[in-house]
Amino acid sequence: MNFEYYMPTKVVMGRDCVKKQAGLLAPLGRHALIVTGRSAEENGALDDVLSALGANGQQATVFCRVTPNPGIPCIREGIALLKSAGADFVVAIGGGSPMDAAKAIALLSVQERTDEHIFDGGYAPEALPMAHIPTTAGTGSEVTPYSVLTNDVRQTKTSLSSPALFPRVAFLDGKYMARLSPEISLNTALDALSHAMESMLSRSAIPLSDTLSEEAIELIVPLLCKAQNGSMTLEERDTMLYASTLAGMAIAQSGTTAVHGMGYALTYFHNIPHGRANALLLGETLRLCEEKKVRALPRILAACRMTLDGVTFLLDSLVGKREEIGKEELEAFAVQAAQNKNIQKSVYEPTPDEVRRIYLRSFGRDADEA
Amino acid sequence: MNFEYYMPTKVVMGRDCVKKQAGLLAPLGRHALIVTGRSAEENGALDDVLSALGANGQQATVFCRVTPNPGIPCIREGIALLKSAGADFVVAIGGGSPMDAAKAIALLSVQERTDEHIFDGGYAPEALPMAHIPTTAGTGSEVTPYSVLTNDVRQTKTSLSSPALFPRVAFLDGKYMARLSPEISLNTALDALSHAMESMLSRSAIPLSDTLSEEAIELIVPLLCKAQNGSMTLEERDTMLYASTLAGMAIAQSGTTAVHGMGYALTYFHNIPHGRANALLLGETLRLCEEKKVRALPRILAACRMTLDGVTFLLDSLVGKREEIGKEELEAFAVQAAQNKNIQKSVYEPTPDEVRRIYLRSFGRDADEA
Repeated sequence: MNFEYYMPTKVVMGRDCVKKQAGLLAPLGRHALIVTGRSAEENGALDDVLSALGANGQQATVFCRVTPNPGIPCIREGIALLKSAGADFVVAIGGGSPMDAAKAIALLSVQERTDEHIFDGGYAPEALPMAHIPTTAGTGSEVTPYSVLTNDVRQTKTSLSSPALFPRVAFLDGKYMARLSPEISLNTALDALSHAMESMLSRSAIPLSDTLSEEAIELIVPLLCKAQNGSMTLEERDTMLYASTLAGMAIAQSGTTAVHGMGYALTYFHNIPHGRANALLLGETLRLCEEKKVRALPRILAACRMTLDGVTFLLDSLVGKREEIGKEELEAFAVQAAQNKNIQKSVYEPTPDEVRRIYLRSFGRDADEA
Repeated sequence: MNFEYYMPTKVVMGRDCVKKQAGLLAPLGRHALIVTGRSAEENGALDDVLSALGANGQQATVFCRVTPNPGIPCIREGIALLKSAGADFVVAIGGGSPMDAAKAIALLSVQERTDEHIFDGGYAPEALPMAHIPTTAGTGSEVTPYSVLTNDVRQTKTSLSSPALFPRVAFLDGKYMARLSPEISLNTALDALSHAMESMLSRSAIPLSDTLSEEAIELIVPLLCKAQNGSMTLEERDTMLYASTLAGMAIAQSGTTAVHGMGYALTYFHNIPHGRANALLLGETLRLCEEKKVRALPRILAACRMTLDGVTFLLDSLVGKREEIGKEELEAFAVQAAQNKNIQKSVYEPTPDEVRRIYLRSFGRDADEA
């Protein structure tokens, strides 16, 4: 048995935990940069954070201009605002985009990098302290050491990875998801499901990440249909949020694998939401795992309490009508994705031809003729 | 869903991980106080640590006078040596006794307490940095915020608890257990089993501690007979060590409950090894849980893959002949234990009469007449 496990974030879950546990924000600093999108006002999270910071006598500056799939310009803008405001810690409110932007801002505001070296790795082990408040149940970013950003040079999404990117504290409260649309609820849930499954299919999976992933899958699968039809109760929102955090703890150890590696192109070139992009590719990926007799597959299916056909049928029903993407374009994605490091981390080692096949079959294209 | 989860220790597992990952010790300080008992020389752990520190150019002073179930005098001696040597971090090698002593030394060397206030709580959130290397697979102390010490004033064992007591890093290597006697292997395994079960029976159990406990139980139970008869392979040593760490991560969240609270008297007054003391009381405790229809019990039994009768029969067979303890003495233990905070943390809320019954029945005494 050989592994490393590390997840130092304090995770607090409960109704109104941001306000009830405001004291956990107090040691982080004097002045917070709150990094968020527009939804934080609607779901009440921004009010809760401002009230908690106020109770602690901490100042706050709001940076609410994080766009979906943020890239380097957004990070630069956040760092400039942080410095002009004199903020010394970061509070992230949102889905993956604000959380990942907040992490990059917290890291790169204390260590300078020119744009072309941002994704090079080798970061010093320091970042501004962070608190994260997820307002979707999917990304798990609140408990990972990753920040996934749009990389226009390589025309994909690329992740920064550093132990310094673990938030100090994550506050989980399903109430912020109460009014999420069925579409976002489903897409983010599919992201969490994909994290859990991909973690189990990673070369870097460890026994503990498998245990966390299995638990996440067991909790997520029975709720997917309710996410889609908009009938989740507040308690089920909590369960889904908890499961997405477990899946985040799993990928914090193992990383994601081929599905994420292939999905980024769908988001970059077709603006397909990240979780949906994964779900579109997941069924064919699991079929490849069956073909290759991947040892983790039976455990994944057992956690789903379904057969492989059952899982792929469920995914098909959930994603509905698939986007129209031409064969030539999919083949170009395959060429690019085959070099992606996430793909190389897959325990089933997909060949370039297998990557091509997953892309083509996932969009109803004939994969037999080259 | 309401919980807090925190476990910031980096856990590294693998053959020769102390030497291979010596670099993880480098940031801890210039001069280590190595806190250990005598066995660290025999099992090779001390050599590995000295070699790792040497490779980093770090100095070391060895404090090898930790006795089983250490009390305040042992802690004072360690602190004095640490200060005279000028050590600025602590490396613990051993079972629960050296690890718990090391934690108290790391905490109390940076915050003064007179003897009578050591167990009062309210510690500042600081201690010297620590690395822990377990050489038994039982205590889980390498991933908990507790230090359990003999408390002569109250004639029991009492725990110090502080987030500052989490080690920075824990190195897990089953090779240090290769020559453990069957007796110690079994007693420590029973301690780990008891941690996992008690965590699930705690009022402070959280969903994630339950998941960790279930996994620990599933791994430990099939190895208990091999621990007893001395036939564990090195891989099985690793598995048991991993399981004991999982159980430690669980009690780091939930604490232990009635079994530990009652077992301490058996150790204090009869010198019964800690894990064995727990195992002697565990069967009757589970029977009480059945009577009280405790919701966690079916999950515990499912993780054991046994009926309640099966589990109690297994425990009986493993502990063998029980110590002779008179009825009057057991009743005195019950009076004292009923006020123990661990007992109050049990989800099944044992009454003083039920505590008495567990003690008496566990030692074959008639519990019906008062």
